[in-house]
This record gives sequence, structure tokens and C-alpha cells, in this order.
Amino acid sequence: MRLSMKNDTKAKAQKRLARIEGQVRGVSRMIEEDRYCVDVVRQIQAIRAALGSLEKLALDDHLETCVDAALSSDDIRNRKAMVEELVQIFGGRK
Amino acid sequence: MRLSMKNDTKAKAQKRLARIEGQVRGVSRMIEEDRYCVDVVRQIQAIRAALGSLEKLALDDHLETCVDAALSSDDIRNRKAMVEELVQIFGGRK
Amino acid sequence: MRLSMKNDTKAKAQKRLARIEGQVRGVSRMIEEDRYCVDVVRQIQAIRAALGSLEKLALDDHLETCVDAALSSDDIRNRKAMVEELVQIFGGRK
Amino acid sequence: MRLSMKNDTKAKAQKRLARIEGQVRGVSRMIEEDRYCVDVVRQIQAIRAALGSLEKLALDDHLETCVDAALSSDDIRNRKAMVEELVQIFGGRK
Repeated sequence: MRLSMKNDTKAKAQKRLARIEGQVRGVSRMIEEDRYCVDVVRQIQAIRAALGSLEKLALDDHLETCVDAALSSDDIRNRKAMVEELVQIFGGRK
Repeated sequence: MRLSMKNDTKAKAQKRLARIEGQVRGVSRMIEEDRYCVDVVRQIQAIRAALGSLEKLALDDHLETCVDAALSSDDIRNRKAMVEELVQIFGGRK
Repeated sequence: MRLSMKNDTKAKAQKRLARIEGQVRGVSRMIEEDRYCVDVVRQIQAIRAALGSLEKLALDDHLETCVDAALSSDDIRNRKAMVEELVQIFGGRK
Repeated sequence: MRLSMKNDTKAKAQKRLARIEGQVRGVSRMIEEDRYCVDVVRQIQAIRAALGSLEKLALDDHLETCVDAALSSDDIRNRKAMVEELVQIFGGRK
């Protein structure tokens, strides 16, 4: 049931990742230029928020593809394994 | 009181940022290669955790430099402004 | 699939709830006695942590009873509805 | 600088605590009556949110009373001790 991401999710995710990569480099520049540490902290918080919303995008896609397929499976072990994994990654959310 | 980061904090932060940038590019590659979405989610969670600990590093440095200096200031307005700002950025933490 | 909690989970949960109720009353007393606000805040944080762990207890029981039963169901709609609900309550976790 | 809470904050806090105590007893009743565990989980989440907002109320009062007074103190040690404590309790927030 390890399906891949939907194409439009992939495109969205790649766009966001490119933006996040730029933001990470931006923080590095801010530190190099001795920018005020509070502005650095705020920028790090913004990146974390962006990653949080990317995580949600990936999770939603996972629910609509792999989880949905696993739940349709006739093999009860597939269904249970998928839900167990789901619970695990939700546990890793903040 | 807008002092810059201590040199060893800067060095540490830059090292971590370089690593985080690599991790972000890694996620992009994982998506391109159609890797299992749960692994993508886990990797995003790891990056968020790394950013969280970088944020803590920057905050601790800020406390030891700018906040400490502001609290030594004779101008009560400096002291209050610094603490207000501190409360604000703590509010942005998760 | 709306099974009830296992008996030992119920007993554990009731014990914890009694303790939490006492803690809530304790905070009320602290405020009445003009106790230092930082101690009040810390006590509130302790209660939230206790509720967080009670929530985990209830969720784990739910996974072992209702979710497990739903996943064994032959009706795919039951399976999907249960997982949807699960995702919803995980979304409410902090 | 260990001032007590402002009177209107106290009144507000007591009112909320009475409500929270009722909610905690409500969860106990729900479990006794074998109510659906998802509803139990949701109710626990609601109580945690109520406590989170009570914590914010207490913190805001603390900032306006004790922290404000400490920052006006001529003794730099008072000022630093108060901010250290503040950072500590913010660290305990979720």
C-alpha cells in the first residue's frame, strides 16, 4: 500500500520546500550579518510553521492515498499495520 | 541592547543551518524519487525538531547577551521593552 | 463499534480524575490564599500534563477496543469512518 | 516582588476553576456511564484548552504585577532573578 504522493501534492510540496530552503539560507545570512537575534528567532519560528503546514499536506495526501487503499484491503493485517503506523506518526506531531 | 550573537553560538548555529539545509534538500529528493510518504513525514518532523533546538540555542544566546545587558540598563524603559519582546517571542514558541 | 473502555482502564482513569479534581481545587485555594502567581502557573502546568497523560490513556484504550474492532469489520465504511474520526481527534492533540 | 494577583483576575480565575472542576467531574461521569471513548477524549481536550487559557490569564497578571515591579527595582539581582524565573515557566508551556 506504499503508493506515491499525488502529482499535484508533489508539485505543491516541492514549491514549498524550495521556499523553505531559501528561508534557511536567509537565516544563515542574517547570522553572518549580525542581525538582531530576536529577528533570527522569529524567522526560525516562521520556518517551523511552514514545515508544520508542509507536514500536514503530506499527511493529508497519505490519508487519501495509502491509508485509503489499505482500508479497502481484504487483508486485515494490512489494515491494522497501516493504522498503527498512522498513530505513530501522529505521535510525532507537535 | 541589540548586541550580536556570541561567536561560538554563531559557529554552532551556522553548522546546524547547513545540516538543516541539507535535510530540506533531502526531503525534496525523497519526493522526487517517490519515496514512501510516511518516511517523508518523519523526515519533516526531524527537521522541525532540529529547528526547535536551533531556536532554543538562539534564545539562550539572546538571554545571555541582549536581555542581560538590558536588565543592567539604568533606563527602566529599556528593561521593560526587552522583557515585552521576550514574552512575545516565547508566545511564538510551540 | 462504540465499545466501552476496558475495566482496568476505567479504574485507572477514575483514579487519575479524582486526583486531577483535587489539584484543580488546590489551585483555587492557592489563589484564595494569595499564593505567588508563579506557583499557581506551575500547578496549572502540572494539571495540564496530567490531563495530557490521561488523554493518552483513553486514546490507547480506544485504539485497542473500538478501532481494532472497526478494522476487523467487513464493512469498509465502518473502517473508513473510524479512521477519519481518529485523525480528527489526533488533530485536537497538542 | 511576590505581589498577589489583581482582584479582578482572581475573580475570573476562580470562576473558570469552578467550571473546570465541573468539567473534570463530568468526564468521570461519562466514563461511569460507558460513554463513547472518543467523546471522553474530546472532553479532556476541551479541559486542557480551558486550563491553557487560564494559564495565560495567570501569566498575563504576573507580567503586569510582579514582573513589572521587579523591573522597576533598583536592585539588578531582583530584575535578573525575575526574568530567569519567567523564562523557566515559559519553558513549561506547550
